[in-house]
Amino acid sequence: MELFYSPQTDGGICRLDSEESNHCVRVLRHRIGDEIHVIDGAGTLCRCELVSDAPKGAEARILETLPGWGGHPYRLTLAVCPTKNNDRYEWFAEKATEIGVDAIVPVIGERSERKVFKTDRLRKIVLSATKQSLKAQLPEVVEPMKVSAFIDAMAADDTVLKLIAYCFEDESVPRISVKQALRDFGGDRIAVLIGPEGDFSPEEARRAIAAGFRPVHLGSSRLRTETAAVTAAEAVYFQFM
Amino acid sequence: MELFYSPQTDGGICRLDSEESNHCVRVLRHRIGDEIHVIDGAGTLCRCELVSDAPKGAEARILETLPGWGGHPYRLTLAVCPTKNNDRYEWFAEKATEIGVDAIVPVIGERSERKVFKTDRLRKIVLSATKQSLKAQLPEVVEPMKVSAFIDAMAADDTVLKLIAYCFEDESVPRISVKQALRDFGGDRIAVLIGPEGDFSPEEARRAIAAGFRPVHLGSSRLRTETAAVTAAEAVYFQFM
Repeated sequence: MELFYSPQTDGGICRLDSEESNHCVRVLRHRIGDEIHVIDGAGTLCRCELVSDAPKGAEARILETLPGWGGHPYRLTLAVCPTKNNDRYEWFAEKATEIGVDAIVPVIGERSERKVFKTDRLRKIVLSATKQSLKAQLPEVVEPMKVSAFIDAMAADDTVLKLIAYCFEDESVPRISVKQALRDFGGDRIAVLIGPEGDFSPEEARRAIAAGFRPVHLGSSRLRTETAAVTAAEAVYFQFM
Repeated sequence: MELFYSPQTDGGICRLDSEESNHCVRVLRHRIGDEIHVIDGAGTLCRCELVSDAPKGAEARILETLPGWGGHPYRLTLAVCPTKNNDRYEWFAEKATEIGVDAIVPVIGERSERKVFKTDRLRKIVLSATKQSLKAQLPEVVEPMKVSAFIDAMAADDTVLKLIAYCFEDESVPRISVKQALRDFGGDRIAVLIGPEGDFSPEEARRAIAAGFRPVHLGSSRLRTETAAVTAAEAVYFQFM
């Protein structure tokens, strides 16, 4: 099943942008009258009939809409510091999308080696993974922000389970497993903050805890940043399985 | 903490092969008298003192051995069909090693596009991931075999929880979640069989079920082969967390 993406599904018509149109008309050779499936990126699958096969601006008439198609029963935000190797971050974003994530926030920590991060390429990867894994909701890729800014932005919201995966190598702060923290939580909105290779600074950790983030560990294995992020996504996936 | 690998740890001496010796002596410039840490690949970490800094054949005297170092409380075999794109299989092997796996078996299914598979490169990746994630036990990379051969080899062993992740798109066979199957099982030895992009053939599925494999699903998300394999590893990891 081939999915196309169009955020413009108003008035019963889906308009495909030039890239999607080219793929639909030039690559897959769809013609007027063909049935195609379009996701709006907000969780709805549209079964459509192609009414214009213009290779730069194809249009399809919506025959049926299926809201919440391919969705998951939780809302997960993963705030993850960039990895030194960009491929590893892109891999995490692809896998988290396949498993089920709602927002990816590249956060820059005090100890992050990479201070700049481009989201364009990541958005393409997330869109491709969303279509490939047959989901109608496109995870949001948020513009990069400082770890402290993310913490402050989350502080007010008490309806979200806020977790920080921090090593606390000095063992000064008691941690529970992410599995236990998810089990203890009754709700379905979760945010997990994953640090850089060099971990969070003690100040960032203090700030997070003061803002209501619960320190968790991801088990006994020593995981790379991108593996920790995927493991956090899997922990939520299994909690709601 | 830098780890070196030597399967030859007999008689109180660890002998490093030319590659490990070069890394120890030429790259990291260790000299006689330096303390180094060597894993035997069988689960033991050896704290050693370098007694020969020959760049092609370094040797270290064992000061202390720590058995079961960085281990996990289960024994997991992942039999996974090769992916079209080899990088994806290597990525799975690296991540499964970080999370915790004991044996990786490349299995060739009737519907596998790739019928040949080279293990040399995969062994390098698994060794590097073992060292990087601070484990002393090197997952075994088994030589490729047919899916049917793997099924037959496992059939006799009733002490292992045998799971097959199969789509059964015809829904002819009832499946439970991998989470439930692991919960129902009291033991700690698990084998999971993951099919190719085109899934197992019905004959392979029948054969597996006849051999005592339990059909499981990995949740509602549609996962690529390599993501399914990592998700299976995570399911076991979380069961024992």
